Amino acid sequence: MPAKIRIGKLVVIGVGLIGGSFALALKRARAVKRVIGVGRTRGNLSVALRRGIIDEVALDPAQAVSDADFVFLGTPVGQMARVMAQIAPALAPRAVITDGGSTKQDVIAHAREAFGEHFVRFVPSHPIAGTEHSGAAAAHAELYRDRKVILTPQPETSKAALRTVRATWVQCGARVLNLDPAEHDEILAAVSHLPHVAAFALVNALARRNNGSRLFSFSGGGLRDTVRIAGSSPEMWRDICIANREALLAALDGYTAELADARSAIERSDARALGTMFEHARAARARWLLRKKR
Amino acid sequence: MPAKIRIGKLVVIGVGLIGGSFALALKRARAVKRVIGVGRTRGNLSVALRRGIIDEVALDPAQAVSDADFVFLGTPVGQMARVMAQIAPALAPRAVITDGGSTKQDVIAHAREAFGEHFVRFVPSHPIAGTEHSGAAAAHAELYRDRKVILTPQPETSKAALRTVRATWVQCGARVLNLDPAEHDEILAAVSHLPHVAAFALVNALARRNNGSRLFSFSGGGLRDTVRIAGSSPEMWRDICIANREALLAALDGYTAELADARSAIERSDARALGTMFEHARAARARWLLRKKR
Repeated sequence: MPAKIRIGKLVVIGVGLIGGSFALALKRARAVKRVIGVGRTRGNLSVALRRGIIDEVALDPAQAVSDADFVFLGTPVGQMARVMAQIAPALAPRAVITDGGSTKQDVIAHAREAFGEHFVRFVPSHPIAGTEHSGAAAAHAELYRDRKVILTPQPETSKAALRTVRATWVQCGARVLNLDPAEHDEILAAVSHLPHVAAFALVNALARRNNGSRLFSFSGGGLRDTVRIAGSSPEMWRDICIANREALLAALDGYTAELADARSAIERSDARALGTMFEHARAARARWLLRKKR
Repeated sequence: MPAKIRIGKLVVIGVGLIGGSFALALKRARAVKRVIGVGRTRGNLSVALRRGIIDEVALDPAQAVSDADFVFLGTPVGQMARVMAQIAPALAPRAVITDGGSTKQDVIAHAREAFGEHFVRFVPSHPIAGTEHSGAAAAHAELYRDRKVILTPQPETSKAALRTVRATWVQCGARVLNLDPAEHDEILAAVSHLPHVAAFALVNALARRNNGSRLFSFSGGGLRDTVRIAGSSPEMWRDICIANREALLAALDGYTAELADARSAIERSDARALGTMFEHARAARARWLLRKKR
């Protein structure tokens, strides 16, 4: 386990569920002295101040990062390029930077373009720890406990910066591992981005019907859980889907092919084929849960 | 609220989650004197005996129902026609019959054909209260507490039988309402059968990939909840899908149309269209949860 880290000034740009929980976890671990919050919504920053997630609000991101030891980018991935361009000219030469974005190839491309000489101290990261809630109000210090955080360092990435970022996540209680960014994006397209699109689409398919509002009153726990993530931030997920377009389209096509197979078996009342499909799915899910427990 | 009911001999054919929980709830309410279990699997019946769900095992369903006051059909809907044909010649003239099947038009058609003069005492019912667990081991007395049970009585259905069946569900703690069978099947296709097909297909789409087993290790709570119901009984769901074919195909087509719209927005990187879709879904889900709470 890396040595305990101590950050002087942490700037969190985008103090939502992800950035806010990062700050709270580091504060509780006494791994940070002072947290400055930057954001688009005054109401959300007031919540963050009141909850002690941040100690101070800064209106100008460039000014805020000029003497920062550590910068956390917690904005939706669609905002990353703009924010990076804003802060790049002002970054202190010691500042270590990371992000919490759900896609990595596009974030890295933006960072490479915006950060110039600072790029070596940018360590891309993705904590696999969202919920359907968003904003500073939803942040909590335990969000990352025992969750995976994926780092996707580049050939240029400084070993020292990598150690620092890894140490912050370990302080948050996370299990940290490295992945290639393309592999990261392909995996997350399948296990996270696709399920979100599926959940949003399922709710819309039901809501669109004539008896939409009546329908939901007859639903049980199955539908409730299946569409829980349709409560997630539309802006964040819109950005993710577009940022990870290629991998997500491939995953979507795999899913609609499965649905088409199921449809065809139902249409021809092929109990054997349909039963086999469902058996396969149940067995795969059971194997997966078994491995999770170990 | 109907008067408290008291059943002498209850025969449960198919002592799984649904039938077993029905028996347990009535036993706890002291609404039944003696429960006889009939089933295909000796192991499951042993569990039911050991857990006190049933008092006795009967091997011959016809013999079991010959002096029954109440018969509960808890088999998968694909078995209903066979079971009904088996018991019909032996049914006592006083026996009230109900079922727990998730589709109603087909169950009613089978009952009308099999039961003859007994059909007036058959009251089709569907408790909206499954979980992904199945079998007698999963049964519990509280399964129906505050859950909806839908009755779909027919013009011929005897008022007395309807009162009796309604009273048993009330004893189980359920909220009972009546629906037209076609409306029932259409609604359930959308809010229950479609989500199950979607969940089974999603797991299969992931499991089928080259890196399938590795994929799951990177999943979070979103995927876990989204595919929870893919743990449900393949046989039960295969039967439901085929029994409710027409309504389910229509619901599936609505869903794949939504997925195609989302795919198209992602493909052309249309952030506005995609954001609007996701907003709609989040808002519809929020309205639904709000109404559920009331």
